[in-house]
Amino acid sequence: MKVAVVMGSKSDYPKVQEGIELLEKYGVEVIARALSAHRTPVQLAQFLNEIEGEVDVIIGAAGKAAHLPGVIASQTLIPVIGLPIKSSTMDGLDSLLSIVQMPKGVPVATVAIDGGVNAALLALQIMSLKYPKIKDDLVLYREEMEQKVLEDDKNLRG
Amino acid sequence: MKVAVVMGSKSDYPKVQEGIELLEKYGVEVIARALSAHRTPVQLAQFLNEIEGEVDVIIGAAGKAAHLPGVIASQTLIPVIGLPIKSSTMDGLDSLLSIVQMPKGVPVATVAIDGGVNAALLALQIMSLKYPKIKDDLVLYREEMEQKVLEDDKNLRG
Amino acid sequence: MKVAVVMGSKSDYPKVQEGIELLEKYGVEVIARALSAHRTPVQLAQFLNEIEGEVDVIIGAAGKAAHLPGVIASQTLIPVIGLPIKSSTMDGLDSLLSIVQMPKGVPVATVAIDGGVNAALLALQIMSLKYPKIKDDLVLYREEMEQKVLEDDKNLRG
Amino acid sequence: MKVAVVMGSKSDYPKVQEGIELLEKYGVEVIARALSAHRTPVQLAQFLNEIEGEVDVIIGAAGKAAHLPGVIASQTLIPVIGLPIKSSTMDGLDSLLSIVQMPKGVPVATVAIDGGVNAALLALQIMSLKYPKIKDDLVLYREEMEQKVLEDDKNLRG
Amino acid sequence: MKVAVVMGSKSDYPKVQEGIELLEKYGVEVIARALSAHRTPVQLAQFLNEIEGEVDVIIGAAGKAAHLPGVIASQTLIPVIGLPIKSSTMDGLDSLLSIVQMPKGVPVATVAIDGGVNAALLALQIMSLKYPKIKDDLVLYREEMEQKVLEDDKNLRG
Amino acid sequence: MKVAVVMGSKSDYPKVQEGIELLEKYGVEVIARALSAHRTPVQLAQFLNEIEGEVDVIIGAAGKAAHLPGVIASQTLIPVIGLPIKSSTMDGLDSLLSIVQMPKGVPVATVAIDGGVNAALLALQIMSLKYPKIKDDLVLYREEMEQKVLEDDKNLRG
Amino acid sequence: MKVAVVMGSKSDYPKVQEGIELLEKYGVEVIARALSAHRTPVQLAQFLNEIEGEVDVIIGAAGKAAHLPGVIASQTLIPVIGLPIKSSTMDGLDSLLSIVQMPKGVPVATVAIDGGVNAALLALQIMSLKYPKIKDDLVLYREEMEQKVLEDDKNLRG
Amino acid sequence: MKVAVVMGSKSDYPKVQEGIELLEKYGVEVIARALSAHRTPVQLAQFLNEIEGEVDVIIGAAGKAAHLPGVIASQTLIPVIGLPIKSSTMDGLDSLLSIVQMPKGVPVATVAIDGGVNAALLALQIMSLKYPKIKDDLVLYREEMEQKVLEDDKNLRG
Repeated sequence: MKVAVVMGSKSDYPKVQEGIELLEKYGVEVIARALSAHRTPVQLAQFLNEIEGEVDVIIGAAGKAAHLPGVIASQTLIPVIGLPIKSSTMDGLDSLLSIVQMPKGVPVATVAIDGGVNAALLALQIMSLKYPKIKDDLVLYREEMEQKVLEDDKNLRG
Repeated sequence: MKVAVVMGSKSDYPKVQEGIELLEKYGVEVIARALSAHRTPVQLAQFLNEIEGEVDVIIGAAGKAAHLPGVIASQTLIPVIGLPIKSSTMDGLDSLLSIVQMPKGVPVATVAIDGGVNAALLALQIMSLKYPKIKDDLVLYREEMEQKVLEDDKNLRG
Repeated sequence: MKVAVVMGSKSDYPKVQEGIELLEKYGVEVIARALSAHRTPVQLAQFLNEIEGEVDVIIGAAGKAAHLPGVIASQTLIPVIGLPIKSSTMDGLDSLLSIVQMPKGVPVATVAIDGGVNAALLALQIMSLKYPKIKDDLVLYREEMEQKVLEDDKNLRG
Repeated sequence: MKVAVVMGSKSDYPKVQEGIELLEKYGVEVIARALSAHRTPVQLAQFLNEIEGEVDVIIGAAGKAAHLPGVIASQTLIPVIGLPIKSSTMDGLDSLLSIVQMPKGVPVATVAIDGGVNAALLALQIMSLKYPKIKDDLVLYREEMEQKVLEDDKNLRG
Repeated sequence: MKVAVVMGSKSDYPKVQEGIELLEKYGVEVIARALSAHRTPVQLAQFLNEIEGEVDVIIGAAGKAAHLPGVIASQTLIPVIGLPIKSSTMDGLDSLLSIVQMPKGVPVATVAIDGGVNAALLALQIMSLKYPKIKDDLVLYREEMEQKVLEDDKNLRG
Repeated sequence: MKVAVVMGSKSDYPKVQEGIELLEKYGVEVIARALSAHRTPVQLAQFLNEIEGEVDVIIGAAGKAAHLPGVIASQTLIPVIGLPIKSSTMDGLDSLLSIVQMPKGVPVATVAIDGGVNAALLALQIMSLKYPKIKDDLVLYREEMEQKVLEDDKNLRG
Repeated sequence: MKVAVVMGSKSDYPKVQEGIELLEKYGVEVIARALSAHRTPVQLAQFLNEIEGEVDVIIGAAGKAAHLPGVIASQTLIPVIGLPIKSSTMDGLDSLLSIVQMPKGVPVATVAIDGGVNAALLALQIMSLKYPKIKDDLVLYREEMEQKVLEDDKNLRG
Repeated sequence: MKVAVVMGSKSDYPKVQEGIELLEKYGVEVIARALSAHRTPVQLAQFLNEIEGEVDVIIGAAGKAAHLPGVIASQTLIPVIGLPIKSSTMDGLDSLLSIVQMPKGVPVATVAIDGGVNAALLALQIMSLKYPKIKDDLVLYREEMEQKVLEDDKNLRG
């Protein structure tokens, strides 16, 4: 079980960190890289070549005119999850539209703006097709999540 | 290889038809259903129960306050692809935000507004983790797509 | 006189607190719950079952892809007031559209983003159909509100 | 059972017609009026005076800078449902924000852009607090709606 | 020379203060009032009656679903300047659209979001039709503004 | 009584025609010109020079990056009314923001997108400060408008 | 004088045609290509290699998640003009943001949505640095444009 | 090699400073001016006259209804780069649309909101047509940028 997490800039790391930790907690090997579609297109292509056949899912996180996930998706058939990062202007709308509105033929599985944990969970759900045991972990995750809400609910009710 | 395509209203069918045909062309069995998160929540839950362990991916297509994909995702761990449908107002922005902005814990893999073919392609890419032979079909699809662009390009150059 | 206030996450509590206090001040029994449409769909359905025939109005508060009010509305005929909560991105536009743009057949009575007090007042106005004495309280509320503006106005005029 | 439907302009009538017919089908007396908050403020106020204590719910339909529902709500404690009408520009966003973003103290129960039927259904749900028998009609309406979806679903499955 | 400045809430005062001071500096008598279209509709109407024939221009400042300027404009033929106030959500877009998108027949002269000084300057320009001497003051204001930019420019050039 | 109506392109004429006719009906001399801030800046400046002291109000109508009203306002102290024209993209939002968001010091009195009649009415209201008899015409206009609504209302009531 | 015009899809041709004709009219050799950043990344890179040192400016036209201009800009130092194409949803906002919001380091010179002629004119202005005689043509173009407006203006004045 | 950097207000300086330093580092003479299209139109025109034939590129930076770059572009054939500045409301959307949506005939080469460095880099790329040696500097800049990303990447990989 291997996931590549590519971010357009190292400054995006805090937005993916929790997701990476979640993946690792569930036994997934994570290859985290800071590679830009615009600033290091050659190294990005090279990296994608290296991981072809090696990783199960790729997460691409980027902000502003966020081409990274789409550019990755155009160079591989590994499922690509797009994570729009909110930058200093436009409240993440630019990132979201740049990632989700991919033209016919090259899809990117887009999650919420700054939704790093959901990107990781989606990766796990996708990998569960190949590694059915992940499903048990995910069932557990949902149960914990449910318990957390129910405890909050209990506290609220006093 | 089995995909469930759930649309919130039968009127969404033209937006998913081409994607369904693509899936079937590549040998995927498609279960197409018109079930609404709001108008038939019980039947939707029942359907999700039935297909648990049977289908590999679920595509949920809906417009306006498009809760369908998220509601499906909350009831299963099968990967859910969300397809925002453009309705008569708001140019699809309401559908897109209602689908992609899912809160932490329950991701939906969102594709472009009215991007039915991309939803199908993403489903194929995800299934390729389990059925590696799909990858050959997808390679072929990309080659055909590439050829189509190159022919257009040739015609353009005269 | 009974109102259920369901919030998608306990972190939404500060946005509904003032509204709850207002309801209680006017003698309404408030059942405040933190139940998520996505994380605890079963408990939510169970809770809705319990309160059927018991409460007069339900207020559903949620942020991001805010399905909670619509999901509640699909499971009951009790009037549902939707309260969009502003989250860390999109300035509440995602919550607003996810709540207000409900498809034909299942309405949600939507109030302003972060408009917790207005949700409470709307609940009171709705309940006044059944409990006419609430109208006296509301008349009083409006008079106090009026007085508050007039005092401000007086201070401004010096 | 009486509902007043006030539209800002007679040209909005097609957007409220189906809702009015639905109300009348369920035995509600509908007083439909074309009165503008800006062009006939005096007659609007007079009309609101006349219906005080006579109608159970008021539906206000308006487009552009749609002040009508809010202005009505400021002059009565009868629950006011706001129906944003899409006009020739801005795709209804101007109407929606002008209606839903009411300041603290004077709520308007807003439904979807051009959501005339939902406005009627919400009126019925609200009135059911006072006239419990409406609930039977609404249960029937939901069942018919459900049947309609299930038939569509059946046809789709072939 | 008299201008009425009506704000929907006393909390809007900081947004109009500089404009009021500018008006007073140029010899205009300012009647500043905190009156809400929704919370004090009667007092607002009464105030508008009082100032009819007394003031030359009315400035209406309001946020969110900002009906105040339009409601004022519907009750008088005195030119009404609308000043959209940015509130805690929607970045002032709700206020702007609620004020500027007035339907045919009742215009509001809208200025920029939080543009209190421009509202005052526009009032002065309008009044200059009746009181030509204001033009001299405005010429002076523009010259000072010009000088300020030119000094900044000089400092920048070092 | 003289008003200059400047449009950025002759193709904007249909959007200002009804307003021009209204002005002429009420005895205002209208100087209609097609002059662009970008394509004919010299002739625009020259025209503004010519009309200085001759016209009472200037209406500037323009679409897209609509600089015309602001550029006019920067060259004169005559009140400038900005009329945003909806073009083929962006639904008029670009025109609206380009006109209304003028920086401190140079206001433009902005009316609704494609609101040509309101631009004319606002011009009349402004001119009424200098020519009080216009007020009688405006009173009449409002009465006719009121009558029109009331007739519509009568027809609606059957 | 050579300009490459790359469009993401042959269907974008009508949006660039007039610009291409303008370039050719002024003696610029145009290499028009239909090459997609996502569907034919290899051929795009190859084409960019071929034209390195051969063309003066590149125009990239694309719609939806419009990565083409940015991807081109990341592979060359030739100035890249981005032309956002309006597609069937989002009114071109997705294209505009995907093109203009490029991250620090790799600029794209963006023109208006569907602004094919402006893309061509900008290319000519840029090339005029190297080929000063273009300036004469551009002066002529502006004069013709000016004459066109002045004739329209003359016709308008009757 | 000469570039004029015109900002609408001295307060925009921090947004252009890094770009100016970059230009100077690469040997470009920068003429930085604070001149407003609205507050100092005469001095702006005069400045544009002075630099005609002297500078290679003009950068215009402005916020809100940002007419400066377009007004400059209408008065010269020197390539004009538009830099939208984010102001206190609207997150820079008003600036962006006011700059990029220029009508046919007068293009502005628009870069990202607050993208001062990209404006400088675009100016360098444009100037490289005339001064080919700039290309070496730009190659170096890209290499450094690449190195920076690769170092970040290295650190990330630990």
